[in-house]
Amino acid sequence: MISLILAESSLELVPSELKHHPSVISHARKLDKHPSEILLDNSWHFAAMKGIENEMKRGRPDLVHFSILEATTIPLYLQNKMKLYVHTLDDKVISFGKNVHIPKSYHRFAGVIEQLYQEKKITTKDDVLLEIDEKTFPELLDEINPSKVLGFSTKGANTTYEIIAKDIPDNSCIVIGGFQKGHFSDLIENKMTVICSVGNESFEGHVVVARMLYEYEKTIFM
Amino acid sequence: MISLILAESSLELVPSELKHHPSVISHARKLDKHPSEILLDNSWHFAAMKGIENEMKRGRPDLVHFSILEATTIPLYLQNKMKLYVHTLDDKVISFGKNVHIPKSYHRFAGVIEQLYQEKKITTKDDVLLEIDEKTFPELLDEINPSKVLGFSTKGANTTYEIIAKDIPDNSCIVIGGFQKGHFSDLIENKMTVICSVGNESFEGHVVVARMLYEYEKTIFM
Repeated sequence: MISLILAESSLELVPSELKHHPSVISHARKLDKHPSEILLDNSWHFAAMKGIENEMKRGRPDLVHFSILEATTIPLYLQNKMKLYVHTLDDKVISFGKNVHIPKSYHRFAGVIEQLYQEKKITTKDDVLLEIDEKTFPELLDEINPSKVLGFSTKGANTTYEIIAKDIPDNSCIVIGGFQKGHFSDLIENKMTVICSVGNESFEGHVVVARMLYEYEKTIFM
Repeated sequence: MISLILAESSLELVPSELKHHPSVISHARKLDKHPSEILLDNSWHFAAMKGIENEMKRGRPDLVHFSILEATTIPLYLQNKMKLYVHTLDDKVISFGKNVHIPKSYHRFAGVIEQLYQEKKITTKDDVLLEIDEKTFPELLDEINPSKVLGFSTKGANTTYEIIAKDIPDNSCIVIGGFQKGHFSDLIENKMTVICSVGNESFEGHVVVARMLYEYEKTIFM
């Protein structure tokens, strides 16, 4: 079993200082929800988000959705060989149970995550599907206690997914940014055993998730 | 240069026989659009779609969005080594220009596609970004005139992406279903030079797109 953490992910509810902004109020009204119950989303709340702290790393739930789908629609996850965690920029951690089918339709995904923020847990009769807790990245790592922490960043040494996949011991933890642009904060980077870069350009997070997990899957299923 | 066709894709405007259904009317009102101007979407129009012809292959623009993003966010496409076509179940073809950045936010994607249905072309000063035409799958193939047509279906011979990638001559055309469930219609299947299956289970279309293009990319970039 390995773990994948989407770290510093661009996922949060509208923060209280933005809940009175007209772009937030009109969007919340469309959704029939209170402004503080909806996900911060740059594509709707662009005007409200201008100049907020850490602007480039916030308000992209669409990117997080996309990376989650890459990780949860593949044999590695469906056959329970990988555990997924979404760590958010504001230090919450969403844990995924076994065989959770995340909606592909964005508005349904947003609805599930907004419900999770309210109820803290989404369960069936027997299983916890999703759970959200206040937790920092170091606290999450302490819990997982991985044998190796493998981060992806353009700052890292240039290599390929194939080469990396050959050296992923059991209980490793792969860390990929859940944000659009920028680098991991030092707190996160300092926790990595090794930092890898996969090409000269900066790849989109979901592409790194898909390719890395696919190459790892090949080493264990073939 | 190779081509990728998402065939019989689950993408269409609300058909006229459904435009008076309450679920369609209330959704169109939310979007401030006329019912016949919005994409048919099972996650909103489920009640309206019950029992329509070919139900399982229709109304999943979210899946098509996801497969398009897999294909257009990777070096193969961005470096102009692959041409993308979305063929729809009702025989329209969307062609993608060079270096087109498709919105990751679903509601923006839907907005662009709805605009495309109205205007038939989306252009910048110098380039055609997206174009939609009435065209059947055989007509599209005649235009591309590929050296080999490589289809993916669980009906095909079992193989791996790696093996397939080693035998993709220049000017090949890869065909992957743009629908949720079911098989290609005979008209499409009969056009394939070879039909491949990649595992015992039925993979989601976006996973096949991501993995196949990645393995092909490796053969030409490395």
